[in-house]
Amino acid sequence: MAKPNAVYAQSGGVTSVINASAYGCIKAAMAADFIGDVLAGLDGINGVLEENLIDLSRENPADLEALRHTPAGAFGSCRKKLKDMEKDRAQFERILQVCEAHNIGYFFYDGGNDSMDTVDKLSRFARQEGSPLQVVGIPKTIDNDLPITDNSLGFASAAKYNTVSMMEGSLDVSSMFRDSTKVFILETMGRHAGWLAASTGLGRRTDQDGPHLILLPEVAFEKQNFLARVEETVGQLGYCAITVSEGTMDTRGKFLTESETTDSFGHAQLGGAGQYISELIKKDLGLKTHSAVLDYCQRSGRHVSSAVDVEQAMACGARAVALAAEGHSGVMVTIVRESSSPYRWSLGFTDAGNIANKEKKMPREFISGDGFHITDKFREYCLPLIQGEDYPPYENGLPAYRRLKKNLRPVKLPPLGAGSGAGKQS
Amino acid sequence: MAKPNAVYAQSGGVTSVINASAYGCIKAAMAADFIGDVLAGLDGINGVLEENLIDLSRENPADLEALRHTPAGAFGSCRKKLKDMEKDRAQFERILQVCEAHNIGYFFYDGGNDSMDTVDKLSRFARQEGSPLQVVGIPKTIDNDLPITDNSLGFASAAKYNTVSMMEGSLDVSSMFRDSTKVFILETMGRHAGWLAASTGLGRRTDQDGPHLILLPEVAFEKQNFLARVEETVGQLGYCAITVSEGTMDTRGKFLTESETTDSFGHAQLGGAGQYISELIKKDLGLKTHSAVLDYCQRSGRHVSSAVDVEQAMACGARAVALAAEGHSGVMVTIVRESSSPYRWSLGFTDAGNIANKEKKMPREFISGDGFHITDKFREYCLPLIQGEDYPPYENGLPAYRRLKKNLRPVKLPPLGAGSGAGKQS
Repeated sequence: MAKPNAVYAQSGGVTSVINASAYGCIKAAMAADFIGDVLAGLDGINGVLEENLIDLSRENPADLEALRHTPAGAFGSCRKKLKDMEKDRAQFERILQVCEAHNIGYFFYDGGNDSMDTVDKLSRFARQEGSPLQVVGIPKTIDNDLPITDNSLGFASAAKYNTVSMMEGSLDVSSMFRDSTKVFILETMGRHAGWLAASTGLGRRTDQDGPHLILLPEVAFEKQNFLARVEETVGQLGYCAITVSEGTMDTRGKFLTESETTDSFGHAQLGGAGQYISELIKKDLGLKTHSAVLDYCQRSGRHVSSAVDVEQAMACGARAVALAAEGHSGVMVTIVRESSSPYRWSLGFTDAGNIANKEKKMPREFISGDGFHITDKFREYCLPLIQGEDYPPYENGLPAYRRLKKNLRPVKLPPLGAGSGAGKQS
Repeated sequence: MAKPNAVYAQSGGVTSVINASAYGCIKAAMAADFIGDVLAGLDGINGVLEENLIDLSRENPADLEALRHTPAGAFGSCRKKLKDMEKDRAQFERILQVCEAHNIGYFFYDGGNDSMDTVDKLSRFARQEGSPLQVVGIPKTIDNDLPITDNSLGFASAAKYNTVSMMEGSLDVSSMFRDSTKVFILETMGRHAGWLAASTGLGRRTDQDGPHLILLPEVAFEKQNFLARVEETVGQLGYCAITVSEGTMDTRGKFLTESETTDSFGHAQLGGAGQYISELIKKDLGLKTHSAVLDYCQRSGRHVSSAVDVEQAMACGARAVALAAEGHSGVMVTIVRESSSPYRWSLGFTDAGNIANKEKKMPREFISGDGFHITDKFREYCLPLIQGEDYPPYENGLPAYRRLKKNLRPVKLPPLGAGSGAGKQS
């Protein structure tokens, strides 16, 4: 029988280095003598369910090389979560059917907490059904909230981007406050954990530098206390720069601006925390404000990525293949910190079930006593991760990002839903 | 008598290269044998009015060198505009008194349309009063709306930043649209002219790349026409990326943000043009959107500046000193395009009165027939300006931006308002 094929797929919010993980994984899989063809799922697990399998042998080699420096999800990502193994049995069966039809023995899934739930469930279902399919996860999320792994891929680059943005915005407001804006606000992503917001504190070297205040999801927002600190800072310096995480909550545990919509994972769709803070300061303190919402730009800002992040992303992608070679399934690659100074790391792994649906918040020792700043312990943790500048190549003044052709392999099964019994995508 | 001293000052919204102009000007002034001490005004013209003159000889030389790569206004900027020469005579007299007290013979003012009004008026007042003071302007504004000069300093870097941001945000939405956000919106600065919004079109190389639609202040916003184009794009590609200038106006000539609308939850509309477009698409098309507002980050984003911009900024600063040496006053340095391909430029000058209070909008030939795109003529104009990457040096993972000490020269006059007759700052 032919050597089993491998499929790589991307899931959840993309990052500036998720394609660098893809590059590491695909390159290792192509080089591995135990793997046949290397495929990719179009739009994550959807690609497997729907038999939309990208034939990587038909891509231009230069385009595959460009994965190393091209941000966002080159193969398409998804927000699809597999439900209960027994209730949603048809979906799991369909995945195994597609894998069997295409002789897929290895599934590498690049994602965060929800995606590791898929790794966990699918590997257990395969084992239970006697399928040889091995499933290995790669730890991706800019939110850095995966437990066990020391950091998650994409976080360091987003942290670097956000920190540089705060440094620049803070220099801006400090040169304009005399006749103009007094308060600059930067809203960061981070739904439940403050890692990204906290990282903006790394660029603060003197009292003049922002952020003067950081609002974290881990610390309940008290309006009067916060406004007093803004007023105090403006009194001392003439201006104030503030970072606010989109996940910041009030003392009742409500997001600063809770929207009524949810994403397909059932999470509240956020955004607007910066605007909330801006309006509050304008109204209560009568100060002119400006606020920036970097939104997707922070997670796809490959032009200012951390070299450590890019290196780890490629290494984790390659390690997923090595774990498969060793017979592992239902596991996720982890980054292990050997020492902070000098920074030394290695790779390990853990059961995906240890990661699935769990969130690692900022530990209290990383947050200053007043709740508005980071501590030296956090600096010791975070600074090593943002080291080094891995610039993309430029052509004609702009980054040489590339798109793949994404040619699909011929289908071998009836379409999803045509007798397979698999449900429609939720 | 001692050689006359020179003062450099910054005015209006700052840029990522205004300090590079300062660097060019200060370095040339320090090297010029006809200039004595080189000073800087604290917070623009305010520094001269209030006799807050920064003594540059007391700065750390390495900090002065770092001006080349540090964004925002190192000396403080201002939004102060001198009023009518006769009605506001006291302010003009005060400036000449301060200049006389400190033997200032040269005033270099780095700013935009309003600042060139100051250059024009102050030079005429000095001439009229028999003062030897020479006033020379340096063309700065990210908005690129100064007439006569081919481009203005800071625009190219902001254009590069915005274009890269659109490329990255557009790759992001194109990898996530399947289960998630369908429309990505990027709001750019540019209150009266669309240069910055238009520049984001430079990164679009295929139909898949954003921006699919660009909303410019020069083209009246027609809601139904716009929504039809969004729907069409989402129908074809599954997603749509949109750039909206903060200065976009409706058919009645009102800014989008002045439109009386409510958001999709019936709340009164707050925020900017990006949010307006976002809510409109959510409400009328029922599509999930994400929007980024780069705000100050786009004008101080020195980490991704154009090498051409940095080079021109330093050259214009130095040329201002050369113009003073040639006896000019009341003029502004201009950038002259000699050819587009290959790009060749030289420096010229014009009367500041030709620039003051005028705005150069995008010519119609730079905008596509349907009003939603740029033309090849615009590409020919803009692409040469964003060439080359002039990265700042990094230390410990972050840009080595520096702040000056800003030690002030001892005052020689009674304070402003203490008998000088000068009015309070408006």
